[in-house]
Amino acid sequence: MITLEDEDKSQNSKLFSRLVLIGGNSNLELSKKISNELDIPLADSIISKFSDGEIRVKILENVRGKEVFIIQSTCPPVNDNLMELLILIDAVRRASASSITAVIPYFGYAKQEKKVSGREPITAKLIANLLTVAGASRVVTVDLHAPAIQGFFDIPVDNLYAYNFLVNAFKDYIGRVDKNNFVILAPDAGSVIRARMYSEKMELPIAVMFKRRPDIEEVESMEVVGEIENKNIVIVDDMVSTAKTLVSAANKLKSMGANKIYALAVHPVFSSNAIQLIDDSPIEKVFVTDTIPLRNKNEKIVVVSIASLISEVIRRIYLRKSISELFD
Amino acid sequence: MITLEDEDKSQNSKLFSRLVLIGGNSNLELSKKISNELDIPLADSIISKFSDGEIRVKILENVRGKEVFIIQSTCPPVNDNLMELLILIDAVRRASASSITAVIPYFGYAKQEKKVSGREPITAKLIANLLTVAGASRVVTVDLHAPAIQGFFDIPVDNLYAYNFLVNAFKDYIGRVDKNNFVILAPDAGSVIRARMYSEKMELPIAVMFKRRPDIEEVESMEVVGEIENKNIVIVDDMVSTAKTLVSAANKLKSMGANKIYALAVHPVFSSNAIQLIDDSPIEKVFVTDTIPLRNKNEKIVVVSIASLISEVIRRIYLRKSISELFD
Amino acid sequence: MITLEDEDKSQNSKLFSRLVLIGGNSNLELSKKISNELDIPLADSIISKFSDGEIRVKILENVRGKEVFIIQSTCPPVNDNLMELLILIDAVRRASASSITAVIPYFGYAKQEKKVSGREPITAKLIANLLTVAGASRVVTVDLHAPAIQGFFDIPVDNLYAYNFLVNAFKDYIGRVDKNNFVILAPDAGSVIRARMYSEKMELPIAVMFKRRPDIEEVESMEVVGEIENKNIVIVDDMVSTAKTLVSAANKLKSMGANKIYALAVHPVFSSNAIQLIDDSPIEKVFVTDTIPLRNKNEKIVVVSIASLISEVIRRIYLRKSISELFD
Amino acid sequence: MITLEDEDKSQNSKLFSRLVLIGGNSNLELSKKISNELDIPLADSIISKFSDGEIRVKILENVRGKEVFIIQSTCPPVNDNLMELLILIDAVRRASASSITAVIPYFGYAKQEKKVSGREPITAKLIANLLTVAGASRVVTVDLHAPAIQGFFDIPVDNLYAYNFLVNAFKDYIGRVDKNNFVILAPDAGSVIRARMYSEKMELPIAVMFKRRPDIEEVESMEVVGEIENKNIVIVDDMVSTAKTLVSAANKLKSMGANKIYALAVHPVFSSNAIQLIDDSPIEKVFVTDTIPLRNKNEKIVVVSIASLISEVIRRIYLRKSISELFD
Amino acid sequence: MITLEDEDKSQNSKLFSRLVLIGGNSNLELSKKISNELDIPLADSIISKFSDGEIRVKILENVRGKEVFIIQSTCPPVNDNLMELLILIDAVRRASASSITAVIPYFGYAKQEKKVSGREPITAKLIANLLTVAGASRVVTVDLHAPAIQGFFDIPVDNLYAYNFLVNAFKDYIGRVDKNNFVILAPDAGSVIRARMYSEKMELPIAVMFKRRPDIEEVESMEVVGEIENKNIVIVDDMVSTAKTLVSAANKLKSMGANKIYALAVHPVFSSNAIQLIDDSPIEKVFVTDTIPLRNKNEKIVVVSIASLISEVIRRIYLRKSISELFD
Amino acid sequence: MITLEDEDKSQNSKLFSRLVLIGGNSNLELSKKISNELDIPLADSIISKFSDGEIRVKILENVRGKEVFIIQSTCPPVNDNLMELLILIDAVRRASASSITAVIPYFGYAKQEKKVSGREPITAKLIANLLTVAGASRVVTVDLHAPAIQGFFDIPVDNLYAYNFLVNAFKDYIGRVDKNNFVILAPDAGSVIRARMYSEKMELPIAVMFKRRPDIEEVESMEVVGEIENKNIVIVDDMVSTAKTLVSAANKLKSMGANKIYALAVHPVFSSNAIQLIDDSPIEKVFVTDTIPLRNKNEKIVVVSIASLISEVIRRIYLRKSISELFD
Repeated sequence: MITLEDEDKSQNSKLFSRLVLIGGNSNLELSKKISNELDIPLADSIISKFSDGEIRVKILENVRGKEVFIIQSTCPPVNDNLMELLILIDAVRRASASSITAVIPYFGYAKQEKKVSGREPITAKLIANLLTVAGASRVVTVDLHAPAIQGFFDIPVDNLYAYNFLVNAFKDYIGRVDKNNFVILAPDAGSVIRARMYSEKMELPIAVMFKRRPDIEEVESMEVVGEIENKNIVIVDDMVSTAKTLVSAANKLKSMGANKIYALAVHPVFSSNAIQLIDDSPIEKVFVTDTIPLRNKNEKIVVVSIASLISEVIRRIYLRKSISELFD
Repeated sequence: MITLEDEDKSQNSKLFSRLVLIGGNSNLELSKKISNELDIPLADSIISKFSDGEIRVKILENVRGKEVFIIQSTCPPVNDNLMELLILIDAVRRASASSITAVIPYFGYAKQEKKVSGREPITAKLIANLLTVAGASRVVTVDLHAPAIQGFFDIPVDNLYAYNFLVNAFKDYIGRVDKNNFVILAPDAGSVIRARMYSEKMELPIAVMFKRRPDIEEVESMEVVGEIENKNIVIVDDMVSTAKTLVSAANKLKSMGANKIYALAVHPVFSSNAIQLIDDSPIEKVFVTDTIPLRNKNEKIVVVSIASLISEVIRRIYLRKSISELFD
Repeated sequence: MITLEDEDKSQNSKLFSRLVLIGGNSNLELSKKISNELDIPLADSIISKFSDGEIRVKILENVRGKEVFIIQSTCPPVNDNLMELLILIDAVRRASASSITAVIPYFGYAKQEKKVSGREPITAKLIANLLTVAGASRVVTVDLHAPAIQGFFDIPVDNLYAYNFLVNAFKDYIGRVDKNNFVILAPDAGSVIRARMYSEKMELPIAVMFKRRPDIEEVESMEVVGEIENKNIVIVDDMVSTAKTLVSAANKLKSMGANKIYALAVHPVFSSNAIQLIDDSPIEKVFVTDTIPLRNKNEKIVVVSIASLISEVIRRIYLRKSISELFD
Repeated sequence: MITLEDEDKSQNSKLFSRLVLIGGNSNLELSKKISNELDIPLADSIISKFSDGEIRVKILENVRGKEVFIIQSTCPPVNDNLMELLILIDAVRRASASSITAVIPYFGYAKQEKKVSGREPITAKLIANLLTVAGASRVVTVDLHAPAIQGFFDIPVDNLYAYNFLVNAFKDYIGRVDKNNFVILAPDAGSVIRARMYSEKMELPIAVMFKRRPDIEEVESMEVVGEIENKNIVIVDDMVSTAKTLVSAANKLKSMGANKIYALAVHPVFSSNAIQLIDDSPIEKVFVTDTIPLRNKNEKIVVVSIASLISEVIRRIYLRKSISELFD
Repeated sequence: MITLEDEDKSQNSKLFSRLVLIGGNSNLELSKKISNELDIPLADSIISKFSDGEIRVKILENVRGKEVFIIQSTCPPVNDNLMELLILIDAVRRASASSITAVIPYFGYAKQEKKVSGREPITAKLIANLLTVAGASRVVTVDLHAPAIQGFFDIPVDNLYAYNFLVNAFKDYIGRVDKNNFVILAPDAGSVIRARMYSEKMELPIAVMFKRRPDIEEVESMEVVGEIENKNIVIVDDMVSTAKTLVSAANKLKSMGANKIYALAVHPVFSSNAIQLIDDSPIEKVFVTDTIPLRNKNEKIVVVSIASLISEVIRRIYLRKSISELFD
Repeated sequence: MITLEDEDKSQNSKLFSRLVLIGGNSNLELSKKISNELDIPLADSIISKFSDGEIRVKILENVRGKEVFIIQSTCPPVNDNLMELLILIDAVRRASASSITAVIPYFGYAKQEKKVSGREPITAKLIANLLTVAGASRVVTVDLHAPAIQGFFDIPVDNLYAYNFLVNAFKDYIGRVDKNNFVILAPDAGSVIRARMYSEKMELPIAVMFKRRPDIEEVESMEVVGEIENKNIVIVDDMVSTAKTLVSAANKLKSMGANKIYALAVHPVFSSNAIQLIDDSPIEKVFVTDTIPLRNKNEKIVVVSIASLISEVIRRIYLRKSISELFD
């Protein structure tokens, strides 16, 4: 807990001598970008599997008294990535690290943050407890599905917002975003709060789509409130999983006379044949970040890196500087 | 943990011999109704204050091995009511109760369930931890402001839904609710999910009001998406505090040509001059429950009791029966 | 955990750059005095209430990696002050402070430190658990009603003794305290240990007053062992609440031929009409400290500030110096 | 947690089929008396030591789902007796007992319940934590040195009072205790509260002895307030350890003209040559209980058994009946 | 915690009305056998995966106040099976089960029960902590790789021994096992304790094989102590993973003149091409249990079911009967 | 957590200004050697017993913010030594030490690390829990009886290996250890893993002795696999307690034609008349370390000090250097 007022870059290696970066297997690409931004190498380590699928971990550098940051998204295969993270934390704790920050750019299981009906788990809380009992002393994450998940932890949690990155990339791409031509769309009731944030940031009007429960003829219908006709629509969400909601929203919007359709979403889960669905849809472009690595490149998918955000946050945590300043 | 298959009412006192009901000072009216419904008296106890304002508690009946239910809303004065609850739990735990259920019809501090910016508390989580460390073994509550608060606990939480009671009382009052004349209004982004529940239940269309951040001229503006003109509007929310949001929404709706305006809200916090504001507003009626006692009666306020719901839930917990059945 | 051998005063601001002082609303006067003594400003923060009485907290300065001292007496209104303290701790913990010391000059609920009969709480222990679960890493307090309360915590507790301050102020006022003229009086069985400490310190004889349980005629009688007649009596206690015990002791002593009567008590709770009672009593002067702010000034009440004691203790904790040295 | 309204003695073995009694080695005599009173045998078990002094435990009866009461005083050799108790609890917990009550008639280390100066332990709290972490679910003890020790636990603690037993035995012995002839003496400041209890119970006046710190000539002096001359003195304390305080008090009292001198003390620790000292002193009789076994019989020592008290408390805990009733 | 002395089979359904069996996906075959043995159906439930690989759980029967047994081996895919188990526990705990027993026939990660060198995890302990924090109240498992893993838990653990089943099946197969013809072989230092158990049970001599660290020419050599020539060898181990150790041991034994070679191992992990290796080896038969389901049948593999053992243990836990009796 | 790149010996006292060494009474000789090696005095403190056998502790130097290492073997009298250690930890924790490392050269109760049959404790785990709840932040120990005991802790544990010291001392004594003449013997199944370590290190063949359960005539027999005749035998074990196993092994080996017999064992518990037994046996020399002090010198016992190992480990922990490097 040295006081580090002075940050002369030439003293970088000395200044950061107590910082250790470990990259799990879930998103090594992002870990390497963060490592480059910070000019601190990823710690040498064995993070693999035994023949029976059990995870094998061994850190090859001294971490005694160090401040360790472990970068691991709990994206698919979520259980493997989560266990790898927990085992890494265990290894580092037993090796006497002075603090352990779990940097989880994509926090899986976040949609299971409440009981919708009886006898369901609250898996997101379970995960919070697992991370804490394993020995994490702090969590850094990006755009939690529900902000209340922060409260699932009693250790400090920094929930970073990536929407500025998406908004800027979108504006760069479009050129000029005019409030007469563009509308932000919340694709369901759960994304209205997020949509309002984008609407404030981009100074655009807002529309909301509601899914109606299937009626007797088993047709799920969608209701839209707000102006759509002849507008360019920007669908915003925190993540795209199967892309079914997104694509059926786009189809509905087209049928209502929408002009061009775009989507902004932080986390590109893209499960099943999501990318194929998007490719075949009327959507022009989907802007996402690199919290999850993309298995396949696709022309419609624009990836915006948030490595600079995460590395700046790691730097500030290590130097005991404010993180909220970053978002003022 | 006796098996209680047989529930012959004539055996009530024997069957429920291990159930103890304690009513805190926050909402004795509701506690008494629950006690009547269950036909089980409130336990004799001293729950008062010493001259220096410190809470004084003494339970005057044996609770050893009993299943104790403590009924206490953490409504204003919230800190006094909360501490009274915690101290009651402590007294009962040290007296060897076999289980302690905190029945908290109105769960205060629930709006502080996430950090909006840096260096804020997550007070709702703090409260969850305080209840747990004091010794609560289960929580029963009604319409949590954010359902994720359930996950703030590792003990079982039953979050009951009261909206059926409000919907039925409203329908009884109106007679016929027609989807051509009535619209559900979510008064801000945060209440859209709740509004959608009402909209599904009542088979009515939905509209959403957004507050815009004040522009340079410091005028806070409101934007509404959805049809308002010539409609009867039902504003739905989980609670009414100062009633400012509610009343300015009503005024805006009137200015847009709305017909009659009603409000449904579970928790009547009614802080400051809320009731006066409602009285002076174009709102016809506000339907609320009795999770919080009303200080003053008012013609516009219709109180719907949920004592039967809570007493049925207590009965089922004690008899180890399913609660989710109640909501199927 | 920097080594701070060198304490050149001119380097004060650098030396103490990691120390953050926060003053709660219970005793801002004392917090400001401590801040002055240390030459460290109170941290900028919002500590207020929402319209519904819920406490609102936001710290406006970076506390990441800082050693935070929160000064808050849990004097009346005790529940508000206690919750404010807990919520401050929660906010600071989630903002990644490196340590959080709760400085509680008056520790409320301390008289509820044991069960006198069945089914009572041990509220002082509950408070200890609440502080710990909220995230306090250390407690500093003054003259705990029962020293065993230290053991209610597993975190370090520094229980400071203020009696030197009272004794010195009393001696300054009286001029010469002669063991032939002055007697220390313990006003009940529970204050005998404390009285003995004063008696040793001031080299004065001791007398003890016992309250007898009311007899059949419901007259509470008082029994005194030790010499009273023609003596000046110094009644010593840890706190004055309603002042009833103090004033009826004074009356009894007068009826036994006592000369002048003084009282020394650390904590001026002064609930109900305590000050009026004292004003109307035969007591000459009551010496108290400023662990609790006085609502009304009164000629008979002499307030001795302990700000210098608390600020020195904060300084020593921060500099990792011994506190017991202070009391040798 | 069966309801056990019916307590027909003839059904004793069935009624108590889930109760298991285990007697540690510290006070087998008392354990056997309790076992006799309850008509329940001590569970068959191996509780011994290996050749290297490590404690060896094996319970030879099924305890799965049973309510286990382990009777063990933590009298000298205190560390052996304490570890034996902790290891017994561990064995029983791992064997799936449904509850474990530590019955600790004499709770050792209770005098170390606060820090008198810096860098001391609070061993009584440590012991409370050790018992809890080992798996005790409840504690029953007798006349804790400081009642606040109850608050060191978060599990229920029943602190029983044995003074009625001593008072009755003393009255039986003396015949008539007259308030003109008898005085209760608190032998130091710390025993005044206890002395007041005896004084109320026996309707006798009270006197207090204070030890003065040695002056320059290193003579420890004693000061007594209250009438002694020509009185029979009853010195009361919670325990007798070396008996030095007791015997020097007796000598001082004799020098002040006291008539006969008796002592009542719950716990006969009798360390070093305590019994010899008493034998050689002017004390007539010392009344003690059997919370600790006496190594040597002595004419001056009168042992009053509290087995009936403890067995009744065990019975009530098992039957979920009130214990406070016992002390009304 | 009803007393259930009477176990009339005809009352089975009433007697076991509070027992709920849940079978995870890892070993449904075994779960069904256990369910059959107990004559209690597996609880209706949804245990599957969402499209993004996150586990989805919903129990469709009331578990409030029930004693729930969840049967799940943490065999490959170990992380999926483990997370499924943890999430099931979470769901059941939040649904107010009275106790939750994790029945884990094969306990994965058990080989990572100590640090062999620095900065390694102790994953088996991590797993123990994860199970406990999720809410398990008891663990039942079979032939833990290291018995000390029991001590990784503070909740009760029943570690069952399956070797009797293997020994009996082997004897049935061979007919007569003569100590002049048969030798037990421990295939490495770590399996000697286990080998001794088999050797005692079967009254056969023992031999030990040691792997030598590769010398300069990188040839790993094996050393055998004990008689091999012309003997039938029974290699015993707790599990077979890749089968490499087993097969190279068999080859070595053959080269030393061994007669027929058999293997007994509780857990058939059979990772990689283990079964192929065995098929191509000189081993006659490998006897295993069904703690892990076999993907492919093979003539050389003899599977012995332990369903009767586990179901008897569940029955005894539920009826509060001794389990150690089973192994006397 | 200062960065300490530079370790100029001349700056020793400044560099180590935050390190405090405390030596318990169990092995003061070793503590003093460690203190000498580190050139840091043992902290001034009172560690004794009161007349009733209760341990008395007071640290006489400031430990606020210091890194405290407490050296204490839990050798016989194990319960006294263990409690002394726990109480020391409590005192240091309450005095605000920044970290507390329990250095336990001999970790008693380690043989009770698993349940061999029902209703036994796992005392080694209990001890781990006691140390943790008392406040230890790290444990350093030597040659744990079972390495899995590391996993009984969630705090970091450094388990040091002393066998190099024994091997070197043995080689120095013998001169030349030839693999044709010398054999390592594991005296029972439980010591085979350890024997293999020695065998690898010393490049010697291995033999194993098995105890057979007594047959009907109650004769315990011993079986040996491996070559003994005309060999010098080196029996290796982690500890010698009663020496019965060791001596009867030696007698058996002699009867089988063994040449000279030696023993290497880390921990010299030497309970009962162990030393006498060794003296009367055919064993030439027993090499042990000083983890436990020897009560009596004996010509056959060679003590090898590991003070240099422990002091180097303390130095590295304090300087945040790797410990595993020491064993590469």
